[in-house]
Amino acid sequence: MKIPAVKGTRDFYPELMRLRNWITDGWKEVSLRNGFEEYDGPIFEYLKMYQVKSGEEIAEQLFSFQDRGDRELAIRPEITPTLARMVNQQVNTLPRPIKWFSVPRVCRAERPQKGRLREFFQWNIDIIGVDEIIADAEVIFCAVDYLRHCGLGANDVVAKISSRKMLAAMLEAIGVAHADLQGVYAVLDKKAKLSDEAFAETLAQKLTNPDQRKLVTAMMNAATFEELEQVIHLPQAATDAISEMKQLFELLDAMGIAGYCKFDISIVRGLAYYTGVVFEIHDRCGELRAVCGGGRYDNLLRDFGGPSLSATGMGMGDCVLEILLRDKGIITDQAQRAPIDYYIAAIDEGLTKPLVAIAAALRGKGKKAEFAYKSGKMKKILKQADDLKAGCCIILGQEFIDGKMLVVKDMKTTEQKQIAFGEFLAGLENN
Amino acid sequence: MKIPAVKGTRDFYPELMRLRNWITDGWKEVSLRNGFEEYDGPIFEYLKMYQVKSGEEIAEQLFSFQDRGDRELAIRPEITPTLARMVNQQVNTLPRPIKWFSVPRVCRAERPQKGRLREFFQWNIDIIGVDEIIADAEVIFCAVDYLRHCGLGANDVVAKISSRKMLAAMLEAIGVAHADLQGVYAVLDKKAKLSDEAFAETLAQKLTNPDQRKLVTAMMNAATFEELEQVIHLPQAATDAISEMKQLFELLDAMGIAGYCKFDISIVRGLAYYTGVVFEIHDRCGELRAVCGGGRYDNLLRDFGGPSLSATGMGMGDCVLEILLRDKGIITDQAQRAPIDYYIAAIDEGLTKPLVAIAAALRGKGKKAEFAYKSGKMKKILKQADDLKAGCCIILGQEFIDGKMLVVKDMKTTEQKQIAFGEFLAGLENN
Repeated sequence: MKIPAVKGTRDFYPELMRLRNWITDGWKEVSLRNGFEEYDGPIFEYLKMYQVKSGEEIAEQLFSFQDRGDRELAIRPEITPTLARMVNQQVNTLPRPIKWFSVPRVCRAERPQKGRLREFFQWNIDIIGVDEIIADAEVIFCAVDYLRHCGLGANDVVAKISSRKMLAAMLEAIGVAHADLQGVYAVLDKKAKLSDEAFAETLAQKLTNPDQRKLVTAMMNAATFEELEQVIHLPQAATDAISEMKQLFELLDAMGIAGYCKFDISIVRGLAYYTGVVFEIHDRCGELRAVCGGGRYDNLLRDFGGPSLSATGMGMGDCVLEILLRDKGIITDQAQRAPIDYYIAAIDEGLTKPLVAIAAALRGKGKKAEFAYKSGKMKKILKQADDLKAGCCIILGQEFIDGKMLVVKDMKTTEQKQIAFGEFLAGLENN
Repeated sequence: MKIPAVKGTRDFYPELMRLRNWITDGWKEVSLRNGFEEYDGPIFEYLKMYQVKSGEEIAEQLFSFQDRGDRELAIRPEITPTLARMVNQQVNTLPRPIKWFSVPRVCRAERPQKGRLREFFQWNIDIIGVDEIIADAEVIFCAVDYLRHCGLGANDVVAKISSRKMLAAMLEAIGVAHADLQGVYAVLDKKAKLSDEAFAETLAQKLTNPDQRKLVTAMMNAATFEELEQVIHLPQAATDAISEMKQLFELLDAMGIAGYCKFDISIVRGLAYYTGVVFEIHDRCGELRAVCGGGRYDNLLRDFGGPSLSATGMGMGDCVLEILLRDKGIITDQAQRAPIDYYIAAIDEGLTKPLVAIAAALRGKGKKAEFAYKSGKMKKILKQADDLKAGCCIILGQEFIDGKMLVVKDMKTTEQKQIAFGEFLAGLENN
């Protein structure tokens, strides 16, 4: 019986696992130094958790199933609904502000393609309970702090920032009905991936008024706040949103990452729940999908039955990031196995017991120690120790047979000394 | 809309997450020092992967679903079938022996009860390609090494060891047909949880011959190899299996963990694929389910379409382990948040930019730095720094307003000094 892996999933052989750990360990390290605490939820939740607020695209990509009690469940396609549920459940006792991060495994029933798999890992950071724009600045800083930690510079990646609040105010000023906003967002979100003609066509399906379409197109082509002001007379809510963004850019400048950040009105985000600043980080070449995306979602907790509590956050998947890090030569498949402290081997099968006694004692003292299952010649033993990048090789050779003496060789200096078996073990005990 | 979590799953709030990380970080550390390399597979596989070899109990507890291509899939209830699939796929290129570990999240549609949840984490270690009993000894050592690392002694836990090979040989000698072995194993595996009467009754359903039942019961009540020899004349295969176990106990003794280990014929294991030594680690009080279990499964890779390759391993779930560690007072809910290096706050709202500049610079240099979103009085700031267990508190106070001087307070020595803002940042840059 030969069964393959399911398409769109990955097998993490040790080499790939080291790469995955390198990425996720970095996420954890940067989260902690930025003052976030780790949380996690279940891999599956009630199906309806994802049908209400995540937006159409995600709702269509669910792996759903029934349990034996006929409950409708789904594997999580993202962790934000779980976050909202968890915060709501303990909202009165959690210390504020809530600064949490997570590295969930998530699954989406997508057609596998470059940078998109059916199962991936997604770093999430969220700040809950802070209305001020400083929280949005901190989220963006944290994402950039990680990319910088990986070795990516302002020439490699750019955080493109806009505001749903501004966009909504301008669209409504143009005459788009409030109820049509989500549909228009979905079209605008795809603009960068479409030709001008295709964009015009798709937009026409959502907006029948050609004057509105012309204004929306002009607006989406504006590169700066000043250019936006040329398109229409900005309503107060848009002006407020722009001044908030200007404040955000000042904070990002103070944080030393202005070079990584720019205003870009084309950033809309696919998820339905954003309410304020939204952003995506892209490779400067623009060849890949977004490395990460996020924004403010002030209504989500209330929508999940909790209090009205402001929130802002971001998610970064491992697939596009890995492609980018490979493209830049920062990670490679040759990622080496970590060195070990000791390699222990014997020249004779009869020495297995002292051999494992040494390995067990070293491990018990926290040393990374590997031993040979089979005896071998001295030359072969030293070659194996070298292959495993052992700091030290302990050999049970003729000296052991004759007088219970271990040969201990420092693999770096090649210095070699003898020490009595009992003395060696006693020395470990006393450490 | 208020949606609860699904029964039998856990929400890992930061406090619980720290406990989970403490457990899983220990698993990883001990695996690495014992020479194992980490791997992982997908959270779901083809359903049939789990229907063939995992045994009836697991096949009944699957969360299964169809994807949009009508493929029958299931969330993994264990990782061993994935391991067999992965090793088979690259069996010709993987360096031998294969010593791998994993810490998969697994799901089983069980009725939630003490120590059993529908989603949990399971440490797995496996050695593939080593026929000799030394590999079984290493697996048991590694499990004990972890429990010892947690602070559990030989008075707290015991590894109960038996052999499927011995059991099969004896049952066949008694007259049990080879085809009936799996059914009888399932009954024997439950013996410890049943009264003598209930056991006799259940056994009678599998074995109609009362003489056979009497012998099987006498056999299962034997405490030592010597007592076993009194029950029946041991066939050669049983004698061989016993001498292999004796060798195993000698190796475990050489490894310094004899006090943790004993022969126990009642250990049979539920999974269908075991072929040799089997073991479980239990709390000495015998109040909980097994903390871990494992054994040799020499046919599994072949059964999954690969070559005949010997294998031995074990799995340890986090649920029973957590109960035991709590019972022994080794872990508590009060597990503290890790200290931070710096806490930075200002006495005036106007100082936000220099505030975030300092935080950003410290974080960029790898320091754990947290800052206050809102300005506050000196006393409150120091209280917050104390609550966060900050090593150092940086205050932007009157000194900053007057002359750009930072107040830097060592929270341990309470020593306080002033340093110019620019000088502080430049100092970080040059580090």
